[in-house]
Order: sequence, then C-alpha cells, then structure tokens
Amino acid sequence: MITTDICIIGAGPVGLFAVFEAGLLKMRCHLIDALPQVGGQLSEIYPQKPIYDIPGYPEVKAQELVDNLMDQIKPFNPTFSLGERVDHIAKQTDGSYILTTSDKTKVHAQVIVIAGGLGCFEPRKPVLENLESFEGKGITYMVKNPETFRDKKVILAGGGDSALDWAIFLSNIAERVTLVHRNETFRGAPDSAAKVFDLANNGKIDLILSANLKSLGGNGKLNSVTLENKAKEEIIIDADYLIPLFGLSPKLGPIADWGLSIDKNAIEVDTRDYSTGVDRIYAIGDINTYEGKLKLILCGFHEAAIMMHSAFKHVYPDQKLSFKYTTVNGVNAF
Amino acid sequence: MITTDICIIGAGPVGLFAVFEAGLLKMRCHLIDALPQVGGQLSEIYPQKPIYDIPGYPEVKAQELVDNLMDQIKPFNPTFSLGERVDHIAKQTDGSYILTTSDKTKVHAQVIVIAGGLGCFEPRKPVLENLESFEGKGITYMVKNPETFRDKKVILAGGGDSALDWAIFLSNIAERVTLVHRNETFRGAPDSAAKVFDLANNGKIDLILSANLKSLGGNGKLNSVTLENKAKEEIIIDADYLIPLFGLSPKLGPIADWGLSIDKNAIEVDTRDYSTGVDRIYAIGDINTYEGKLKLILCGFHEAAIMMHSAFKHVYPDQKLSFKYTTVNGVNAF
Repeated sequence: MITTDICIIGAGPVGLFAVFEAGLLKMRCHLIDALPQVGGQLSEIYPQKPIYDIPGYPEVKAQELVDNLMDQIKPFNPTFSLGERVDHIAKQTDGSYILTTSDKTKVHAQVIVIAGGLGCFEPRKPVLENLESFEGKGITYMVKNPETFRDKKVILAGGGDSALDWAIFLSNIAERVTLVHRNETFRGAPDSAAKVFDLANNGKIDLILSANLKSLGGNGKLNSVTLENKAKEEIIIDADYLIPLFGLSPKLGPIADWGLSIDKNAIEVDTRDYSTGVDRIYAIGDINTYEGKLKLILCGFHEAAIMMHSAFKHVYPDQKLSFKYTTVNGVNAF
Repeated sequence: MITTDICIIGAGPVGLFAVFEAGLLKMRCHLIDALPQVGGQLSEIYPQKPIYDIPGYPEVKAQELVDNLMDQIKPFNPTFSLGERVDHIAKQTDGSYILTTSDKTKVHAQVIVIAGGLGCFEPRKPVLENLESFEGKGITYMVKNPETFRDKKVILAGGGDSALDWAIFLSNIAERVTLVHRNETFRGAPDSAAKVFDLANNGKIDLILSANLKSLGGNGKLNSVTLENKAKEEIIIDADYLIPLFGLSPKLGPIADWGLSIDKNAIEVDTRDYSTGVDRIYAIGDINTYEGKLKLILCGFHEAAIMMHSAFKHVYPDQKLSFKYTTVNGVNAF
C-alpha cells in the first residue's frame, strides 16, 4: 500500500503542476496515469509541437514544458504509478480513500484529485475473437518495459509512429519482430518508415504489408497469430506477444461510476475550489466543467493552485493554512 | 484620442498576458500604467528576484518573465501610455468608455480591464510646505525621460536603489547632481553605493549625508532647496529639479470612485467572467477579490483568459466567438 496525502489521477501538465502547489503547503502527492510516461497528451500525442499560449513562453515545445514541470516539482519528490488505470476507489470511515489500479496497486490518500484531461487514453483494440482472454497473456497495448520482450517472438500491428518506433527499438531486443500493417504505406514519420523498410530488407525484422489480424491461437497463453493478406490467404505466425498499436481513444473510464456529476464527459465542479459534489474529490484541468470553462493548460494551473488550498483542511484538519510567497520564502524541499 | 478595443489599466504581468488572450480573439489593446515602464511590481520592486511559482519555470527572474511576456504579446502590437494614471472614465451612450489620464491622454475603448495589482504605486512624498504647488514645476517623483534633466541642477533625495541608480546615471547628463540622504549609509545595492561614494570623492556629484529636506524656494518654479544637517545647520542649494525617491506606496487611487464594489482595497468580481458590477469593466489579477482568491500571478493569467472571452461580445456584438487552439492555429499577428 502506497500512503500519501494527495492522490492525483492524471500526470499531464495540470496534474504535475498540482504537485508543486501541494508541495508549497507541505502535502505529498502520488500520481497515477494510464499512459506509460508523464505528460499526458503533450508527451503522448504532440511532444514536438510548439505551444504558444503558456504565459511567459512565446513558444515552448510540448515535451519541453513537461520536462520543465518535472524539474519544478522535483523538490517535492512525487511518486508515480504509470501505465495503470484507477479502477476502484473505496471511502474509508475516516474520510480518506483507498484507490486500486488495474495492476492492483493500492494507494491510501486523504484527498483525490482528478486531473485526467480528456480521460483515460484507452487503446483502440482490434476486433478479434477471444481477444480479452489473451490480454495480459500475450496481448498488450503498450510497451511499458521493453525488457519484457527480450528474446521473445513479438508481433507489432499498426502503421503510425508508435508501431514504427517500437519495431525499430525492439528489433535489437526481441528474438524476432514482425510488423503487420493493413496498408502499403505508413502514417508515421518518413524517416522512421525508411528505417523500417531498411530493417526488413536486411532481414532484421519481418514486414507484412496489406494484411490484417485474423485470429489468435494458444491455450491459456498466446502462441500464434493468424493474418489474412490482400489475396485472402491466411498466414500463421508463431508469437509470444502481439502488440496492437492502433492509437488511443480518450474514455472517461471507471471515473464515470464514482457518483460524480458528469456533463458531456466532463466533471461538474464548484469554481470556488474545484471540488466535485463528492467529499474530498476534486477535478481540475480539461476533465472538469463549469460556466465559462476554457480547456486551456493555463486555466488548469490556476485550478490546481486554488484546489490545493481547499484540500489543505482535509490533510491538516487542525492547522491554519499560512500562505507564503515563493519570492519571499523560496521552495522548501521534502 | 487613442482608439482601441480594450483599455487595460496596469501593465504588470497579468495586464500584459491579457493582451495575448485578447489578441487571439482579434481584439486590440492599449495599456496605461502609472509607472514609467511595463512589468508592474516585478520590474519596479524586484526585477532581479527569482520567482518559483510560474508554471513551467522552476525559476525565473522577475524581469525575465516580463521580457518574455512582452515577446509573447508582440504579434498583437499593443500600445502603451506609461507614467500616467487614469484619473477619469466617462461612459458613452453606446456603452463604450473614454478614459482620461493624469497627462490628459484620452483613450476610447469598448471595454475596460483593471489589472492594477496592488493599485497605483504612488510616490511617498516628503512633508514640505508648498510641496504640491511645486509639483510639475521643478518637483517630480519619477524619472520618465532622463533628457529632461540635461544641463540642469538636480537634487535627488533618498537612500535606496532608485536614488543611487539615478544619481549615477544623471551624473553624466545633468549640470550638477546633489544626492541628499538622511542617514550615513545606503539601503541600496553595496556596489551602487560604492560607485556613488566614488563619484562624490572625484567631485562628479555632491553627496550630502545625514541631512533632511527642509523647505523649497522659488517663485512659481523651483529654484532652491534648503536642507538641514545633523548639527541643525541650514544648507541652501540652487536647484532646477528636486526628485524625492522615497519609495512607492500602493493606493487604489481614482478607481475607488468608479462605483465598483470594493472590499479591503480590492474589487469584487463575478468569477464566471471576472466582471465587476459595472457594465464593461472587468478586474483581474491582484486587484480583484472573490471567495478563495489567491494573489498569484498564475491565477491572474487564468482570469485574463476567461475575461477576454467574456469581453468579446462587447467588441464584436454580432459575431459568435470561435475558439481555436494555438497548437492548431498558431498565433496570427496584427
């Protein structure tokens, strides 16, 4: 069991900055994100894209902003559970919560902050018979730790940057990498695509184009994948792992069942402190909604600051909050 | 008459960022500030101090933040009236306003945004008989344009950085600089103080320590200042200008008389759009107040964004606001 003051669901820019505002008030944070890295959409979807509306930055690359936020919160030593989705929360008699993730990690926290952006980015899944029965038993939708695939037979499916990048990367780690794509050309970066064609020409990977996933084989654990090519021929490939990389689609996920007031996939909050209707649960950033809401990162930063000042009373019920400016007091690490 | 969409009172960080948010919605801004330069407190009081709580900046010097904000708003070409205080506003029949400054500059705007921080920084004045009758006639409290003092006899009074810095700077411009200070030591930066003592030792300026301003001489225009030293002796010095630099103290100023709802020197606003009770007047940043208000620059940034989306209807009453992300659309200059 991980014990913390504040459990933040979502490690995008707003969730990250919330750690800073909590830290100034001597509150510790643990962050959980369904993606395998911090940064939310910024790192997952457009890391190299410039952002122009972060105050004080005429231009900043999305990943650079995430890196800077990680530097900024470092003194407060946040902890992370990445690649895990919060599946369940349980209210304790003292008002605190125990959260349980998809990997069965348990976190005990006084306060929950939902900074979930557009929601969990859930993988788009192929339509295959018995797909779910092989999940975690050979089928996975993201590469959390490449070492998992060392000396294994891996099939990657997809035509975007993730599929190309992991095909290149895993070609040095796996026993054999097969990349399956339904088209002849790739959507990903041209130089990555060129590299993949090179690897295939040199026999370092198997590249199967104009083919679709057809069915899965294995008894309790995946051991083969059947493809179908343009000519409707079946190709059976031995496989320890199949990694479909068909992109991510945002879903509110289990949060929808926590008794929160939801309007069009967003959580309604009280703008006085960005609290939800549910005791000790707050929502900040793109996942909340209120009259006049703008889905801007800079608005989430403000919401994080206000929200943490409200959460203080739950973490330190006997203390009076004394607010000190960082220009006067600096940032005191813990 | 200056004509603009939005007149922003206060050119501190929040007023500056408001120009950016207005610009994204194709609204032009004119800014008025009582200080002779942009940046508000940051530039005037602590330009070299690090700030730690600007999201995405683990540390940024106050002046650097101001410079970056000026870069960020450059595409929107804002205009400025600096060193002027808004003394009067007049509602027009069409709902717009004409603002008149202390220098009689007139600005016609559809919307007024008060981003006044702690209020006007008004100079602390010495207690001297007939002081006010000499203001603008030899007595001034800030150096707007150093050329005003070329080949003139100037007396500076004070012991802080402003007094030291201007004594050093004007020693090359004025006919004669006299620096008067009531103590033997200076509060300002040690190296500035050392430079001032050097200049005095080399006969480049006159330095009179442990002396106070006693009285003013002149007929309609200042021509002499009388000091009193520790031994209670009077010293009479010929002077075209006396510049008392005793620091600034924040005052709400004429804003207090505009019918706004004021609570403890701050303007009460509706958090849905940071509007005041008065039509087409908004208040953002440290000068406003609402339940849970935090006086943080980052909160003012959020308020600026929300407020400009509300102001749009006054500037473009016939258009529907269509909100586009800068990551998608970039920043289109005008």
